[in-house]
Amino acid sequence: MDAIDTMTSERFRHALSRLGAAVNVITTAGPAGRHGMTASAVCSVTDSPPTVLVCMNRRSGSHQRFRDNGTLCVNVLAGHHQALSTRFATPAEAAARFDYDHWTELVTGAPVLADASAALDCRISQVSDVGTHSVFFCEVVGVSLAAQAGGLVWFDRAYHALGTG
Amino acid sequence: MDAIDTMTSERFRHALSRLGAAVNVITTAGPAGRHGMTASAVCSVTDSPPTVLVCMNRRSGSHQRFRDNGTLCVNVLAGHHQALSTRFATPAEAAARFDYDHWTELVTGAPVLADASAALDCRISQVSDVGTHSVFFCEVVGVSLAAQAGGLVWFDRAYHALGTG
Repeated sequence: MDAIDTMTSERFRHALSRLGAAVNVITTAGPAGRHGMTASAVCSVTDSPPTVLVCMNRRSGSHQRFRDNGTLCVNVLAGHHQALSTRFATPAEAAARFDYDHWTELVTGAPVLADASAALDCRISQVSDVGTHSVFFCEVVGVSLAAQAGGLVWFDRAYHALGTG
Repeated sequence: MDAIDTMTSERFRHALSRLGAAVNVITTAGPAGRHGMTASAVCSVTDSPPTVLVCMNRRSGSHQRFRDNGTLCVNVLAGHHQALSTRFATPAEAAARFDYDHWTELVTGAPVLADASAALDCRISQVSDVGTHSVFFCEVVGVSLAAQAGGLVWFDRAYHALGTG
């Protein structure tokens, strides 16, 4: 083990690259318009009430749209969704992001990826600001599940497919 | 896709089982004593200042010890750490948890697993309560990295080893 005595951003990011995380496309719809982006900073919080959280940079153009709409759907990606993940992370393709794949909706109207491994349709219930980011606490009001449990994980700066979906 | 119209805890947990998450042992030391537990509800927040978050049930015995100590180390596990993960999740083994493996420390004094894929040694900087849980925002003050990038992910209610460590 290389012990590192001083913290730098680079070393912090290197350590975080070891913290595997599910890849999701988070979406919203409402008065601020339809929008979606790839996000791995998503975490379960409690099942009473059913709540997940999503971290988002306040300086991103997306942040205010989610905040204004108050709706957020976490579409958990499966192994075959790598191109979709890249498309929703590429600014140049922002206008055409929803022109591919099959999108539907559940309760809030936020876009739901029809073949997502799981989709958690939420209303944003609370926001905490921490440094440069906001943490959206999202109460889950609708769920869909694919027949197969597939997963796509970002680990060591690469995609890893899990499961069978 | 099976669309589910109504939210239940069971369906929520089923959806969350599709959200792959890194397995970690989080530790603390200080006036409230040394303690550790397995946790997957860990998420990166921002690198300015370097911050991660950890969600914890307020009714657990662990919660108050982390809160009182104000220190928290996220030990990111590798593929060969499954027995360690199970030991730190088994209440009956609480007294002997630290009797195995090699433990060291970095800055805060919280136990650091010597062969963790990565360890993020933190001071708890902010706490938000959401439903039954507290979210600890933890400023990272020390980092260690194993030579190899290994990962252990909990997905579809099973362990999955990633990488080479």
